[in-house]
Amino acid sequence: MAAVTLTIGVDVGGTKVAGGVVDDTGKVLVQARRDTPADDVAKTRDVIIEVVTELAVGRSIAAVGIGAAGWIDVTRSTVLFAPNLAWRDEPLRDYVSNATGLPVIVENDGNVAAWAEFRYGAARHADDSMVMFTIGTGVGGGIVLGGELLRGANGIAAELGHMLTVPDGHQCGCGRLGCIEQYASGSALVRFARAAARQEPHRATALLELAGGEAEAVTGPMVTAAAQGGDPVSAEAFAQVGRWLGTSLADMAQILDPQVLVVGGGVVEAGDLLLGPTRRSFTDALAQRSRLPVAEVRPAELGNTAGVIGAADLARRL
Amino acid sequence: MAAVTLTIGVDVGGTKVAGGVVDDTGKVLVQARRDTPADDVAKTRDVIIEVVTELAVGRSIAAVGIGAAGWIDVTRSTVLFAPNLAWRDEPLRDYVSNATGLPVIVENDGNVAAWAEFRYGAARHADDSMVMFTIGTGVGGGIVLGGELLRGANGIAAELGHMLTVPDGHQCGCGRLGCIEQYASGSALVRFARAAARQEPHRATALLELAGGEAEAVTGPMVTAAAQGGDPVSAEAFAQVGRWLGTSLADMAQILDPQVLVVGGGVVEAGDLLLGPTRRSFTDALAQRSRLPVAEVRPAELGNTAGVIGAADLARRL
Amino acid sequence: MAAVTLTIGVDVGGTKVAGGVVDDTGKVLVQARRDTPADDVAKTRDVIIEVVTELAVGRSIAAVGIGAAGWIDVTRSTVLFAPNLAWRDEPLRDYVSNATGLPVIVENDGNVAAWAEFRYGAARHADDSMVMFTIGTGVGGGIVLGGELLRGANGIAAELGHMLTVPDGHQCGCGRLGCIEQYASGSALVRFARAAARQEPHRATALLELAGGEAEAVTGPMVTAAAQGGDPVSAEAFAQVGRWLGTSLADMAQILDPQVLVVGGGVVEAGDLLLGPTRRSFTDALAQRSRLPVAEVRPAELGNTAGVIGAADLARRL
Amino acid sequence: MAAVTLTIGVDVGGTKVAGGVVDDTGKVLVQARRDTPADDVAKTRDVIIEVVTELAVGRSIAAVGIGAAGWIDVTRSTVLFAPNLAWRDEPLRDYVSNATGLPVIVENDGNVAAWAEFRYGAARHADDSMVMFTIGTGVGGGIVLGGELLRGANGIAAELGHMLTVPDGHQCGCGRLGCIEQYASGSALVRFARAAARQEPHRATALLELAGGEAEAVTGPMVTAAAQGGDPVSAEAFAQVGRWLGTSLADMAQILDPQVLVVGGGVVEAGDLLLGPTRRSFTDALAQRSRLPVAEVRPAELGNTAGVIGAADLARRL
Repeated sequence: MAAVTLTIGVDVGGTKVAGGVVDDTGKVLVQARRDTPADDVAKTRDVIIEVVTELAVGRSIAAVGIGAAGWIDVTRSTVLFAPNLAWRDEPLRDYVSNATGLPVIVENDGNVAAWAEFRYGAARHADDSMVMFTIGTGVGGGIVLGGELLRGANGIAAELGHMLTVPDGHQCGCGRLGCIEQYASGSALVRFARAAARQEPHRATALLELAGGEAEAVTGPMVTAAAQGGDPVSAEAFAQVGRWLGTSLADMAQILDPQVLVVGGGVVEAGDLLLGPTRRSFTDALAQRSRLPVAEVRPAELGNTAGVIGAADLARRL
Repeated sequence: MAAVTLTIGVDVGGTKVAGGVVDDTGKVLVQARRDTPADDVAKTRDVIIEVVTELAVGRSIAAVGIGAAGWIDVTRSTVLFAPNLAWRDEPLRDYVSNATGLPVIVENDGNVAAWAEFRYGAARHADDSMVMFTIGTGVGGGIVLGGELLRGANGIAAELGHMLTVPDGHQCGCGRLGCIEQYASGSALVRFARAAARQEPHRATALLELAGGEAEAVTGPMVTAAAQGGDPVSAEAFAQVGRWLGTSLADMAQILDPQVLVVGGGVVEAGDLLLGPTRRSFTDALAQRSRLPVAEVRPAELGNTAGVIGAADLARRL
Repeated sequence: MAAVTLTIGVDVGGTKVAGGVVDDTGKVLVQARRDTPADDVAKTRDVIIEVVTELAVGRSIAAVGIGAAGWIDVTRSTVLFAPNLAWRDEPLRDYVSNATGLPVIVENDGNVAAWAEFRYGAARHADDSMVMFTIGTGVGGGIVLGGELLRGANGIAAELGHMLTVPDGHQCGCGRLGCIEQYASGSALVRFARAAARQEPHRATALLELAGGEAEAVTGPMVTAAAQGGDPVSAEAFAQVGRWLGTSLADMAQILDPQVLVVGGGVVEAGDLLLGPTRRSFTDALAQRSRLPVAEVRPAELGNTAGVIGAADLARRL
Repeated sequence: MAAVTLTIGVDVGGTKVAGGVVDDTGKVLVQARRDTPADDVAKTRDVIIEVVTELAVGRSIAAVGIGAAGWIDVTRSTVLFAPNLAWRDEPLRDYVSNATGLPVIVENDGNVAAWAEFRYGAARHADDSMVMFTIGTGVGGGIVLGGELLRGANGIAAELGHMLTVPDGHQCGCGRLGCIEQYASGSALVRFARAAARQEPHRATALLELAGGEAEAVTGPMVTAAAQGGDPVSAEAFAQVGRWLGTSLADMAQILDPQVLVVGGGVVEAGDLLLGPTRRSFTDALAQRSRLPVAEVRPAELGNTAGVIGAADLARRL
């Protein structure tokens, strides 16, 4: 029997490091997971190496892919800046490669997730292009064009979270006013829902009950659960997020005209609560070109294993 | 002596059809020009054929490229819709090819201009990627990635003029409120200048003198001339356009991270009057990533021959 | 039998001069009407005098009130500027008074209509305060506080049409971007409906049928008729206007806290098509103070005779 | 010698209760001050009574005026809601009156400050009307019309802080997006300055030095001090606040056309750093009516004793 080439994908998040051994069909054969020591550069590297080592023992591993939130240099070896970790100009590729003896590639987490969906998920039927928004606490992105991840001249393409959406709008953590991240993220969902629960508590009884009566205790999963149970205030919070997301997807259709548009991240688990308003806003924004074909808006399919799968698959292509 | 391969480029605008014979260094050897019979589909085709025939007589022409404002189908043969001409689903490629016996390619005018600048103009030193905004009466765009024009899955990529810039903003001809075309175009420049001349005539004496005292008679060239002569109201109109243009360029840098950003079209002839405010707004918008490299914003270099050069060069690549 | 004191009210519009003899219950006993020679200052004055003379013949008239669109000086004698008429610093009061031998008062048309509704119309049960928006082609306003019209230190209070609503929004005829007049007027209604009919003709069949198939031929009465017949695109145009109007009414409630808020002008004849969305937007905007009492939003009741009635009633108070 | 009538004014803030004995020229003869036990309704009342009692001992006091942040009922006796204190439907007037044996009046703090400036401060030369914005942590307001405070039909007029300024803008504590309080307050000033210091630390060295190098440690007084010392980032933060404040002042001029517009609150101590940009924005917004007279924008003159003086003066008028 012919040997299957295996690679390891590692998804380095702000709270956990998840790794997996992935075969050439995108299947995760085995996983490993550790907490992220986010404030400690050296320990974060060590945890990554631990995860890789554990997974590689006794297996024939061809390469390792690492996905991390942050700006990665154009050679995919150095983390220039990571907002949630302590890394600054961190030569992560060489460090892990030296420690494990394996070829390593480092990639932005939004890119990694997009690649996984392009190869094995919501856009697997596409052969050329897709754009993906990842709606988590913030907003990430990934772009595939010509069958390849778009990395950009300086390695920082597809930074979709900080496109300007509302001039002079809500202040973003990045310093500007009105980035899409302040309107179409999980944080925005919670912010919208909390505000509505404070303003109209009598309409938000289901949501407030989940939150122990305190609007400030509302979390994203509570908004999803309440909306699924019919809470109108929670459904409206999803509609607000979807309205802005649909507008940005329409901009991407006009700029890049990809085969598929994908929406991923934890917030998309709410399904049509998010995608219904998103698609309406998307269609409205493109009404003037309604006679032309345009990409479909699809939910991501791989959930939170997209990071592991995508990183492993990129490593396979080294 | 080895023969030089020549191609013909045709730029079909709302008021004129311009053609040229172009060599393999992007040099225009000879030109021809006719008025556009914009309301008459059949006559517009005939004028194109006349121009091509006149240019081809006695020369060895390899192919013809036609650039036109409008949506072109993905096979680059049919004009699906042209806002300023009467074409609807017009099979322009086959018609011109049959009449002239030459291979023909049809391409969007923004794409054609971008290609010309990428090959022979402001981005000729780039080998991979550029994004160009063409600021004429409206706003057009072109994107080069991986050394090729981005056409999109449906042939309508790089429609940059209708990105949303101000939610609920100035109504666009397309029906939406707040497209970039309403803020960073020559039309917007004139609109801003006229409004200021009505509001503050004492500050706009130079501009109003050019316009015979009537704010409504102000044109784009008058705004440029007055601004160059020191008229503050005209300079402020350029600054308004530049502010929005810079913001959109920053979005493109974040989405595509190209090697070069180019600003073309008639309005860019105003030089630093436009580019100064544009670059300030661009830099402000990207302040949070000031430690990372980013594309330079450059003015187009080929002026209004870019359409002919780009179309001819695309034809050469058939 | 005790003599009833009669006064004459004159409503000077851009297309007609309407006059009426009004008794002390606000009842119009007899009317007269002429076309407005809008471009001719002297003729407009003469037409006003003709109307007054015709109405005064054989009657005991105590005074004359004239309502006109424009800025009136604080002594209510001079029209400083009238956007739709040729008047500039026109001493209208003295001119008409000298010609007719009657005391005359000149007042802004928005103020006059508000006064009529306060005394005899939608706010007649109020004894102290009301704010009225007049939604015609443009947006006018009138404010009553302490049982008196608010005229302001310079005679130009209640110029509600040019409050800023959308920063950098749709350009207003006044030169600024984003005045309420560009979002909550009859002109805006038509603009919204035309754009939607162009974008989504298949949804606007009823409206387009009224307009002979041409989106550009759509008028305000067509939008009203189509919306009343169930045309969704027309109903959405009213909803857009109502959304912005409700927001501005909420601002007025927060600034002035009047007893009543009134919406008048031709557009309000559409009834709940306008007032439904207006009230929803108003309530949403004030959700955070839902436990406090707030003024009711009511439609005007006097229609287009409000100008005559209000002007006559103000003349009575001389 | 004729006896001077004295009254007591009390200014109840979130951190302190300040009282003063005031004569009929607006002069504060003696003061008293306590910390505010903000979370404890009963103790806050007791502290007010302590302050009044201390000031009243041995003096002939005619009445007591109390200014407090919150919504006061139309009879000026009950605090319906106080955002920074624990009061809900608190019958403060009767409680203090019963305890001290003096007539008491309760009034909103923005109204009280406006009244003080109208009588003895920046608008003392006006005899009829003024509008005042108080720019502290939040934005308060007060309106004088016809020589009297405007209280509104329900006691809640002049709630200027929650006028809509940027649709879908920065989220306000009240739940809405885009209230003026999020753009023209001391909190906004600090938010703008912190963001700029994070984005462009090299331009904000003076400000960051005051803040110990930490953008998040920047306070309002630091922004003022740095701006006065020439720090460009701090000056720009004031300019942002002034831009929005000027726009809102222009709206008030169009709505109410008062004799004077006053800007008070702690932020105005920065003087022309705030007032320069404010007046430019105000003038720009009213450019189309530049030939008409309009109220002057003046800084408040009474500083933080305005609350005591205004409350005492209102009590004198009981």
